[in-house]
Amino acid sequence: MPLRLAGRLPRRRGPVGDACPIDRTLQVVGTRSAFLLLREAFYGATRFDDLVRLTGFTEAVAASRLKELVGAGLLERRPYREPGQRTRQEYVLTDRGRDLLPVLVALGEWSRTHSPELGGPTLSHDGCEADVRLTLRCAAGHDVTEDELVVTG
Amino acid sequence: MPLRLAGRLPRRRGPVGDACPIDRTLQVVGTRSAFLLLREAFYGATRFDDLVRLTGFTEAVAASRLKELVGAGLLERRPYREPGQRTRQEYVLTDRGRDLLPVLVALGEWSRTHSPELGGPTLSHDGCEADVRLTLRCAAGHDVTEDELVVTG
Repeated sequence: MPLRLAGRLPRRRGPVGDACPIDRTLQVVGTRSAFLLLREAFYGATRFDDLVRLTGFTEAVAASRLKELVGAGLLERRPYREPGQRTRQEYVLTDRGRDLLPVLVALGEWSRTHSPELGGPTLSHDGCEADVRLTLRCAAGHDVTEDELVVTG
Repeated sequence: MPLRLAGRLPRRRGPVGDACPIDRTLQVVGTRSAFLLLREAFYGATRFDDLVRLTGFTEAVAASRLKELVGAGLLERRPYREPGQRTRQEYVLTDRGRDLLPVLVALGEWSRTHSPELGGPTLSHDGCEADVRLTLRCAAGHDVTEDELVVTG
């Protein structure tokens, strides 16, 4: 069954473009390389050489993508200097960038569900150790299934 | 603060490639056009002409992307026939495709949070009408903040 649509959505006749929040996000971060650089930023990598090494992208691809991520306000450049070296820039997640965590978690969760035999990191709750998953929940505190989700545009 | 990493992750020295579930998903559906075609599939569009019109992609882009999505098992082709016309194929979400809903919700949620003035659809819980959001939750039933999330690889 399709999602339940309300308001103007069922009568839509053409592309919505920037009126769609999904598309707006994808215009900011809609490539594999952008997501994998953000993954490394969440894991704590900040230096260009580390980001290149850990993602496996070429320096040219990483530099171009990092510039876009800084331009979009997801990462910020911060100067640092090792003794005897020139000043360099490191890349640090902004709050705006950190708020993309659910996207990364959702991307990973799909593969963990559909190809568990391929392994990979698991997410757990510090202290109680239980597995962590994303849940759709409403402000009144109910779990929400896909059948109960209404999209109003 | 970076995410808390455990197991082998803190000692990782190079790209993880297919060992990363985030990357595995992005290799299946890692482009803006793929996500927007899936959005329309969730909204109920099944026919090629509708998918082209509603996303605004060219027929060539839509055809190529749909072929990939079918190949990855996210959509399946089903024959249909209008009276007096030849048999055509429509595209229907599989269970495997439907499980990507949290990714689309997470993408949309980010823009709704960071540029609410640009509007766009809202998600609500049928019946109680309360807004719906994605929440990180552990199997023991606790809400999990980013600080409490442990990634073990």
